[in-house]
Amino acid sequence: MGAGMAIDACAREARRYESGMKIAPTPARIAGIAALFLITTPVSAEPPARTAVELAQTGNDLAFSITQGLTTEIGPRMAGTEAESAARRWAVARLQALGFANVREEQFDMPVWVRGEEKAWLTGPFLPQKVAITALGNSASTGVKGIEGDVAYFESFDALVAAPEADVKGKIVFIDHKMQPTQDGSGYGYYGRGRFTGPNIASKKGAIAIVIRSIGTDSHRNPHAGGTNFEAGVKPIPAGAISNPDADQLVRQWRRPQPVLADGDARDPVRMKLVLTPQNLGTKHSGNVIAEVPGSDPAASPVIVACHLDSWDLGTGAIDDAAGCGIITAAAKHVMTAGQPRRTIRILWAGAEEVGVFGGKAYFQRHGKESHAVALESDFGADRVWRVDFKLPDSAKGLADRIATAVMPFGVVRGKQPANGGADVGALIQAGVPAIDLAQDGTRYFDIHHTPDDTLDKVDPAQLRQNVTVWAATLAILANSEDSELP
Amino acid sequence: MGAGMAIDACAREARRYESGMKIAPTPARIAGIAALFLITTPVSAEPPARTAVELAQTGNDLAFSITQGLTTEIGPRMAGTEAESAARRWAVARLQALGFANVREEQFDMPVWVRGEEKAWLTGPFLPQKVAITALGNSASTGVKGIEGDVAYFESFDALVAAPEADVKGKIVFIDHKMQPTQDGSGYGYYGRGRFTGPNIASKKGAIAIVIRSIGTDSHRNPHAGGTNFEAGVKPIPAGAISNPDADQLVRQWRRPQPVLADGDARDPVRMKLVLTPQNLGTKHSGNVIAEVPGSDPAASPVIVACHLDSWDLGTGAIDDAAGCGIITAAAKHVMTAGQPRRTIRILWAGAEEVGVFGGKAYFQRHGKESHAVALESDFGADRVWRVDFKLPDSAKGLADRIATAVMPFGVVRGKQPANGGADVGALIQAGVPAIDLAQDGTRYFDIHHTPDDTLDKVDPAQLRQNVTVWAATLAILANSEDSELP
Repeated sequence: MGAGMAIDACAREARRYESGMKIAPTPARIAGIAALFLITTPVSAEPPARTAVELAQTGNDLAFSITQGLTTEIGPRMAGTEAESAARRWAVARLQALGFANVREEQFDMPVWVRGEEKAWLTGPFLPQKVAITALGNSASTGVKGIEGDVAYFESFDALVAAPEADVKGKIVFIDHKMQPTQDGSGYGYYGRGRFTGPNIASKKGAIAIVIRSIGTDSHRNPHAGGTNFEAGVKPIPAGAISNPDADQLVRQWRRPQPVLADGDARDPVRMKLVLTPQNLGTKHSGNVIAEVPGSDPAASPVIVACHLDSWDLGTGAIDDAAGCGIITAAAKHVMTAGQPRRTIRILWAGAEEVGVFGGKAYFQRHGKESHAVALESDFGADRVWRVDFKLPDSAKGLADRIATAVMPFGVVRGKQPANGGADVGALIQAGVPAIDLAQDGTRYFDIHHTPDDTLDKVDPAQLRQNVTVWAATLAILANSEDSELP
Repeated sequence: MGAGMAIDACAREARRYESGMKIAPTPARIAGIAALFLITTPVSAEPPARTAVELAQTGNDLAFSITQGLTTEIGPRMAGTEAESAARRWAVARLQALGFANVREEQFDMPVWVRGEEKAWLTGPFLPQKVAITALGNSASTGVKGIEGDVAYFESFDALVAAPEADVKGKIVFIDHKMQPTQDGSGYGYYGRGRFTGPNIASKKGAIAIVIRSIGTDSHRNPHAGGTNFEAGVKPIPAGAISNPDADQLVRQWRRPQPVLADGDARDPVRMKLVLTPQNLGTKHSGNVIAEVPGSDPAASPVIVACHLDSWDLGTGAIDDAAGCGIITAAAKHVMTAGQPRRTIRILWAGAEEVGVFGGKAYFQRHGKESHAVALESDFGADRVWRVDFKLPDSAKGLADRIATAVMPFGVVRGKQPANGGADVGALIQAGVPAIDLAQDGTRYFDIHHTPDDTLDKVDPAQLRQNVTVWAATLAILANSEDSELP
C-alpha cells in the first residue's frame, strides 16, 4: 500500500459507476469522484481496480473451489451429525482465510434422525427382485427383520387422499405420479405432496408402510431422499422412496395381464418386502456459520445472503447446496475486493435446512428483530441464473430497474411474479424483509436433487461462474443502495 | 387356409424378390414365380403376403414385448441361479407360443459365484465417506468384518503392471483410467484390462484387495459389475469396482494438497474400508434355450443367431441382453411368417454368458461338429445397427453385396473390417463358421452395461425396431442363400 491508495479507491468507485453498478452519490463519494477528474498525471503504476462484476468475470473459480473443498474434504453433511459439525469448522476456517469479518458459528439444538439399512424387494407375484429404496426423513423403522405386505397402488397423492380406509388398511401404500421437470422447479410442490404428507395420510388410514415413486425426474436406480412429517398423534410408519426405474417396474408388474409363466386366471397382488432401520438420535447440536463484509455505514441495515451447509447424506451435497454457498461467498468476496460497500453483506451458511429449516429458524430467533435491508438465497443447484424476481417496497422501484439492467447482459430475464426468497431466509421474508430471487435453471435439478448422484461432477463450472457474476452484479448494487430505497 | 394358399406362397416369393431380398432362382422357385405371372384373374381376396422386412416395419413390437416380459417377469438373471432357471422356462414357453419348432432346453453345469454384502468407504485422510461399490465376478470375500488399508494409486493398468511389488504389497490397489465412449465399443478391450486381469496382477504383487474405476462411461453412483479371473495358483483377493463419481472423489482426495482442516504438513494416505462377501456356490445347472424356424431343405446347414439369456444381477438385463434375444427372435419370426426359408434358422438364447461364456462353450461341445452356414449374435444393446461387417468365404461375395444393399436403406454402412461374431458363437467362428456383425451403436452402451441402470426404460423402441428390420432383411437373405455361397 503506497501513495496511490486513496486515489485507487476513487478510481474503483468511478469504474463501478461507469460500469453500471451505480453507487448513490453521497457527498463523500461526489468529492471522491470529483477528485479523480482533477488528477491530470498518473501517480500510480498499479492497474485500475476492477468492479465486482469484472472480478467475477476473470475466471476466478472461488465458487468452484468452495464447492469442491466442501464436497471432497467433508462429503455428505447430514444435519446434527459429526460431518455437519466438521463442515462448520471447515466453513469458519475457509471464510476467515478469505478475509471476511465476524466469522462465527451460532449453535442451536435440533432433533436428529439418521438412516440405517435400506433394502426392498418386489416379492410377488414374480420371483423376488431387489429395488433401490431410501427411507424418507422421519420414517419409522421396519425392524431388522423387515415387513412384507400387499401393495395398494395409487396413481397420485389425490387418489390416496380419496381412497377409503379399506383399500389401505394393512397394506403397503404405493404412490405413483411421475414428476415432470420444469425450468422454475414449480412442480416440486405439486408432486412433492406424496412425500411431504403422503406418509401421514397413509398412516391415518391404517397402512403398514408407504413407498413412493421418487420425487425426481431422472431414470437412474438412485432413489431421491427427502423429509416427511407425521402430525402429532399420528403413528410414524416406515416410509421410503424407490427410484423411477423401480417404480416403473412395480407398475409393470401391477398391470401385467397375462404373465408367461402364470398358472391360473386370478393374479396375485404385487407384494413388497421392506427393511428400513432409521433411528431417532434425540436432540443434538447443529449451527449456522456467519461471515460479513462490513459496510462503511454502520447505521445501514445489512443485506443478507444465504445458502445451507448441511446436505442429505446419499450424495456429497454438491448442487444442494455447496454450490449455493460457493456462489454467494464468491460474489460477496468480489464486492469486498472491489471496494467497501455502504451496507454490510451478511453471509449465512445455514445448518440443518434439509430436515426442517432449523438453521433458518434459529437465525430468525436470534436476529429476527434486527433490521435487514433485503434477503436472498442460493439453493437451487449450480445451473445458470435465468430470471430475476423482486419483492421490494415501492421505494425500491428504481433499484429493481438497476438490477434488472445489470443482470440482463448475462442472459437473465425479469420475471413477472414476486420473489419467494429461500427456506433459510423464509422467516425473515415472512416478517416483511424484502426479497430478490436470482432464479436458477431447474430443468435438470430434480435429476440430481437429494440423490446419491449429487456429486461434484454435476456442477458445470461455466454455469457456476455465471451465477457468481450475476450475484456480484446484484450484490454490488444492493450493498450500495440508499436508506430511502430499502429498510 | 383356402384355395389361394399356393398362389400366396408364390406371391410372397415374388414380392421378396422384388423388394431386394433376392432368393436364388432354384428350378422350383422359377416355376413358382413363372406360375404367378400366368394368373390373370384374382383367385383370393386375401391381401398379398409381405416380406420379412415389411412385416418388421409394421410397428410390430415383438422384440420389445420379449424384452419387457423377460425383464419384468423374471428381472435379473444371474447365471446358475433360480432366476436364470425361471428365465429358461419363460423362454421355452414364449418361444413355443410364437410357433417356433424344436424348442428345447439344453442343460450344462458351471461354477456359480454370487455376490453378498457390498459396502465401501473412503476412511482417510478425511471423515469416512461411503462409496458405491460392487464386487467383480470371482472376487474373494473380505469377510463380514471387512478389511481396511492404504490405497496404492495407479493411473492405468499399465502402471500397475510396471509397479514394483513394494508399491503394492499389503495395500488396496486402485486403478484409475476412465473409459471413453466409442461408437463401435472398441475401448472395452483396452480399458477393460483393469477388470479382466488387474486383480490377478495385484494379487501376484501382494495386494490385499483391488478396487478399480468402473469400466463404464456414465457419471452416476452406480458401479459397473463384470467378471475377473485369477490364474490357477494365484490367490483370489477381494476385487470391486466403484462408480465414476466415487473414483473421481478418491482421486480428488488423493491429490488434495492443502486440506482446510489439515493440522500438519505430512498428508496421510487415502485409506479405504471394504466389505464384500461374495460366495462360490460350487457347480450348478445352467442351460441354453434353442428354437428353430425349420428350413425347406433339410440338407442345407442352418443359420445360427444368438443372444444370451443370463444377465448380471444389478439391473434387469434389458440392454444386456434381453433386447438381443428380442431382436433375433422377432427377426426370425418375421422371416418365418413371410414364408418358409430354405435353410433352418436356429435361435440360441445362451445361458451363463456373462460369467464365462459357458453356454456358448456348451453349445459348441454339443453342436460344434454340425455344419453351420453362418453365425450372428446380437449382444451390444438396443440402439440402432449402424454398420455391417462380414467374415465370409470368397464364394459369398455376392451374398455380402446383397446384404449390404438390403440394409443400406435403414442407415447401415458397410464396414471395412472382418466380422468378430459374438461371444456365444465365438467357438463356432473360431472353428471356421462364417460370421456377420450387425454392429449396434455403442455410444451410450457403456453408460448402462452391467450397472443397476440396465432397465427397460433404457431401451428405445424406435431403435429396437430398426434392429429387427435390419436383422429381418439380413436373415431373409441368409436363410435363402445357396449351398454354393455358404457352407
